[in-house]
Amino acid sequence: MPRLVMKFGGTSVADLARIRVAAEKVKREVDRGYDVAVVVSAMAGKTNELIGWVRDTAHLYDAREYDTVVASGEQVTSGLMALALQEMGAAARSWQGWQIPIRTTGAHGAARILEIDTTEMGKRFEQGLHAVVSGFQGIGPDGRIATLGRGGSDTSAVALAAALGAERCDIYTDVDGVYTTDPRIERRARKLDKIAYEEMLELASLGAKVLQTRSVELAMRHRVRLQVLSSFEDLPGTLVCGEEEIVEKNIVNGVAYQRDEAKITLVKVPDRPGVAAAIFGPLAEAGVNVDMIVQNIGADGMTDMTFSCATDEVARARAALEAAHESLRYADMVVDDEVAKISVVGIGMRSHSGVALQMFSALAAEGINIKVITTSEIKVSVLIDRKYMELAVQALHKAFGLEAA
Amino acid sequence: MPRLVMKFGGTSVADLARIRVAAEKVKREVDRGYDVAVVVSAMAGKTNELIGWVRDTAHLYDAREYDTVVASGEQVTSGLMALALQEMGAAARSWQGWQIPIRTTGAHGAARILEIDTTEMGKRFEQGLHAVVSGFQGIGPDGRIATLGRGGSDTSAVALAAALGAERCDIYTDVDGVYTTDPRIERRARKLDKIAYEEMLELASLGAKVLQTRSVELAMRHRVRLQVLSSFEDLPGTLVCGEEEIVEKNIVNGVAYQRDEAKITLVKVPDRPGVAAAIFGPLAEAGVNVDMIVQNIGADGMTDMTFSCATDEVARARAALEAAHESLRYADMVVDDEVAKISVVGIGMRSHSGVALQMFSALAAEGINIKVITTSEIKVSVLIDRKYMELAVQALHKAFGLEAA
Repeated sequence: MPRLVMKFGGTSVADLARIRVAAEKVKREVDRGYDVAVVVSAMAGKTNELIGWVRDTAHLYDAREYDTVVASGEQVTSGLMALALQEMGAAARSWQGWQIPIRTTGAHGAARILEIDTTEMGKRFEQGLHAVVSGFQGIGPDGRIATLGRGGSDTSAVALAAALGAERCDIYTDVDGVYTTDPRIERRARKLDKIAYEEMLELASLGAKVLQTRSVELAMRHRVRLQVLSSFEDLPGTLVCGEEEIVEKNIVNGVAYQRDEAKITLVKVPDRPGVAAAIFGPLAEAGVNVDMIVQNIGADGMTDMTFSCATDEVARARAALEAAHESLRYADMVVDDEVAKISVVGIGMRSHSGVALQMFSALAAEGINIKVITTSEIKVSVLIDRKYMELAVQALHKAFGLEAA
Repeated sequence: MPRLVMKFGGTSVADLARIRVAAEKVKREVDRGYDVAVVVSAMAGKTNELIGWVRDTAHLYDAREYDTVVASGEQVTSGLMALALQEMGAAARSWQGWQIPIRTTGAHGAARILEIDTTEMGKRFEQGLHAVVSGFQGIGPDGRIATLGRGGSDTSAVALAAALGAERCDIYTDVDGVYTTDPRIERRARKLDKIAYEEMLELASLGAKVLQTRSVELAMRHRVRLQVLSSFEDLPGTLVCGEEEIVEKNIVNGVAYQRDEAKITLVKVPDRPGVAAAIFGPLAEAGVNVDMIVQNIGADGMTDMTFSCATDEVARARAALEAAHESLRYADMVVDDEVAKISVVGIGMRSHSGVALQMFSALAAEGINIKVITTSEIKVSVLIDRKYMELAVQALHKAFGLEAA
């Protein structure tokens, strides 16, 4: 029988009533003839409570004990979900990470999945027994519970779907799909039926917080078809899949933004081989996540180096660069922490030129000045004054014809 | 190094502050040179909350999922206790039942321990790593978590102490020891320094709810020295041990009572072989726990059969006996549900006659009528009118010289 993985996040299993609603959705797929593996998170708020207890108990806590305590949250929901399914007449049993087993690395608290042995689970499927799996956890090489880090339940679900050869991995969450942009900024934002993995990755890392980036990467690598849909409404969601499944490729599929960006420019840095490494080395050591990088080389042997980072990393970035002033010998450091990043994303760009031009024109028509530009194969990003952010998103959404019909 | 098992119940680990207090007690024993295995219950109230969720989710619940959900409570405290110990500088790690492993029968929800393999734990002790063990649970033959039933943490602790060859098993609880009687009834009740296993068993089943009966039986069988002491005060507790350790054996060591007893008499039952089985068979089927049984045989081929049970089982007992009236052909059924049971217990009785007489005299002196008498090697029990219960306890406590000095 075809297999299906269904994942429910914390708000979808927040209490017994919601667990029942989720179980009904599972039952429907069971009745459609799927062997279902349900992956569950802890009840909303539970993980934070458990983490709080760990932190209040020990200042420098042992990550193995952290994992033992925190993984209990999913254990509870897995048992309750199995019971709810049984109550509806669907034979099911719970599986903890160590029972399957889901083998992970030994990096407790931030482990990575190494291997999922689905032999036993497959046998149970043949006996008509559906599976409820505690997300977010596995067993480390030391025989102890290892958690995958926050948001790891999405990754559990995708990895399990790959291991089971599932037809699809449905991620139930509190949004009902992936939109062309944030509906809070542009009310005509439209839900996408399908989106390619690459597009989803660009949108996820740009702030459309629907799916954990790692889980999308994993899905892309193993070609797992991911569906994002709502736990609370009965609506079709958005399918994240390979390009080959998307017949009509839009040139632009989404407009993303990142509000709290800062732009830092080192003015007149004497240019020499290795200067970029000399700048970004100290920033990396200081834990600054550099996003966009632009370099302009002048005729005078001097270069201006501009990069962006999150506003709350500016202080660290500034300190690191001031400490490196003697070796870098830049003339000035200019910080603008009142910018936002806007990106247009679409796999159709690969075969269509002129997207950047169309973007710049749309912004110019609104009188919005562009401060930095970077491009990739399927994305064009710009930095603009933060006060124009909403206006820019709306203008681009319209310019690329993304509105709901 | 000598080994010690220390068990903390739910009220002793009810919150982070109490876990710290408990950890301090453990640290003290570590500093005295013991290899310590701490057995913990779930935080007070947590197990009931989890059971409530299971019952609200499924009417006839799967005991395996019940176990999965409920065992999470101890998992949390085991991790937190290990962290608290580490924070105090005592190297420790948590162990779940499946990690040790503690192998149990497959009777989920009421499993019995079959075997505890302490090989791994012993190796860790040699590395200076103390153990924190989730009580109340093990792993069944099906590879799934199995709980031992309510109060099972005491049993876990005793079984572990036996397997580890521990010098002692300390049970920390919310009372500070075993008393000669209930201090709420007799304020001069005295804490016993030592009590024999057999005495403790009689007192436990009679309502001195300090230790789970099963754990005392297990301790007796494996000769594990048990100490009951308070989590909240620094006082010596009561040692439950073999008779050979008790030098000065009191004739009577305790006065126990059971308030809500009922006495049921079947009058003029035609006596014939098998009549007792004909009466108590239907009662057992109805789930009535019969306690005392007294039979008087008359000269007329008729017998009066009297027994006692808890008052809340009277309705069931009455219905069962009425249904069996045709075969039993008793003349009348007399129910007195206003009685209480009083017992005096002491291993010294074996070598001293006259205890029963002394008991009857003391009660007679207070004008208390005795309705039923039963005796065992180390116990004499009577049923009396409930309204005299407190008076009887006080009179017997005095008559046998049990008062605090």
